[in-house]
Amino acid sequence: MAAFKSVLALFFFLLLISCSSGLHRGKRIRAHQPCKRLVFYFHDIIYNGKNAKNATAAIVGAPAWGNRTILAGQNHFGNLVVFDDPITLDNNLHSTPVGRAQGFYIYDKKDIFTAWLGFSFVFNSTQHRGSINFAGADPLMNKTRDISVIGGTGDFFMSRGVATLMTDAFEGEVYFRLRVDIKLYECW
Amino acid sequence: MAAFKSVLALFFFLLLISCSSGLHRGKRIRAHQPCKRLVFYFHDIIYNGKNAKNATAAIVGAPAWGNRTILAGQNHFGNLVVFDDPITLDNNLHSTPVGRAQGFYIYDKKDIFTAWLGFSFVFNSTQHRGSINFAGADPLMNKTRDISVIGGTGDFFMSRGVATLMTDAFEGEVYFRLRVDIKLYECW
Amino acid sequence: MAAFKSVLALFFFLLLISCSSGLHRGKRIRAHQPCKRLVFYFHDIIYNGKNAKNATAAIVGAPAWGNRTILAGQNHFGNLVVFDDPITLDNNLHSTPVGRAQGFYIYDKKDIFTAWLGFSFVFNSTQHRGSINFAGADPLMNKTRDISVIGGTGDFFMSRGVATLMTDAFEGEVYFRLRVDIKLYECW
Repeated sequence: MAAFKSVLALFFFLLLISCSSGLHRGKRIRAHQPCKRLVFYFHDIIYNGKNAKNATAAIVGAPAWGNRTILAGQNHFGNLVVFDDPITLDNNLHSTPVGRAQGFYIYDKKDIFTAWLGFSFVFNSTQHRGSINFAGADPLMNKTRDISVIGGTGDFFMSRGVATLMTDAFEGEVYFRLRVDIKLYECW
Repeated sequence: MAAFKSVLALFFFLLLISCSSGLHRGKRIRAHQPCKRLVFYFHDIIYNGKNAKNATAAIVGAPAWGNRTILAGQNHFGNLVVFDDPITLDNNLHSTPVGRAQGFYIYDKKDIFTAWLGFSFVFNSTQHRGSINFAGADPLMNKTRDISVIGGTGDFFMSRGVATLMTDAFEGEVYFRLRVDIKLYECW
Repeated sequence: MAAFKSVLALFFFLLLISCSSGLHRGKRIRAHQPCKRLVFYFHDIIYNGKNAKNATAAIVGAPAWGNRTILAGQNHFGNLVVFDDPITLDNNLHSTPVGRAQGFYIYDKKDIFTAWLGFSFVFNSTQHRGSINFAGADPLMNKTRDISVIGGTGDFFMSRGVATLMTDAFEGEVYFRLRVDIKLYECW
């Protein structure tokens, strides 16, 4: 009986530790295993004065030395681009879109290509309904770069996580395709 | 005594499951009941060249084919609008404001009205002090649409949640009023 | 034995309360003690037509009555500024940078200086690797103001918290220096 009580006490102690440390501090040891993982591609075609029909993005801000038809010199520093890009499951621009990537990026460095992104994946199909919201720095010369999943709605209600971007193709200054590997670590 | 021990073991087992699944994974079953709920209205009056005195918002970015006084064609695609709008408790523009909605929206689709929002509710009254930060896609032709509460400060310290937007009124291309139903699911 | 069972029942009850309230509701009492705290300075030099070499920021959006070389009247309302600013450990512009602050701010009020910020701290040194993402309102005439840490990557994986901004220096309309006191309340 005494041994039983000791074991019991130990159990309680461990339980209390694990619960309270988890609940009352930010330092909990949490699994770095995603609770959900999704891979998509999206396709950005920047308006260049000639491709109005196909363009999915347009320059809407530029520095004093730039304009809104051609991306500015100095690594496009200061160009603000708005986009509404198709999302596909594979890397084919002509695959049936499963949603739209909507938002903006803004080139923010003079001596190398790098941008800041704020955008959403908007889904409205039988497979996914709702949105995933992203924000973060995109040092686009790096093979992969991580941005934050800052929230979600619908099927992605209250999600948080990390998305790994990879430039999958780049054609001149008009078309690029990004692979996005979304890893959610908070699912509700 | 044996039965008692079995029940005890079962209890421990269930407790451990519930605690560890909650703490060490993102997949916890969490209540979809808000811990705080707030409803506000905010009022956006876009500068159109003639209403400098009353305007609370202005176009500051436009596509190559647009300008900064009149919202562009093609569903305003590419227009970036900055705002500092009064927040009221009811749907009356002339009610005493309880705070300011400050930030931007950017029209991001050619064939329908839709925008991307980044803004804050800033409160500094006896009732509320602090800020709530929002981001997300706003497909504004939908009756309701959800964006994310991505953080908060002051009374809304560390908040997360979902805000449901509804266009409560729309007058020409100058005035619109949004109803915002804020549901916080993380309160600290 | 009866007393032992009562104590046991009480324990279970308390444990269940604490676990379930923590896991299944957003209203948990959580420590307002940061799990990580970092202080940095960053330095913003706005392009003014003459300082192309030193400038770290540029006006890329302006209202109809403004331009992109000089900050607009009415408290710069409507100016969108992109930046790539050095981050230092002390308040000396010439100290070795430990990272870059990259993103944008947008002045959003006519009658006082205030802005909305979306940016990242990007680190790639032996000390810190990864990024911290920020968003929020910056009523910059206040001595201190709080914005949200909305996510992080690398060393700051999944971080959330609050950052307190303080204007540490301000020289004309060209240079300013911000002190950023980052308090993370969610660390993974």
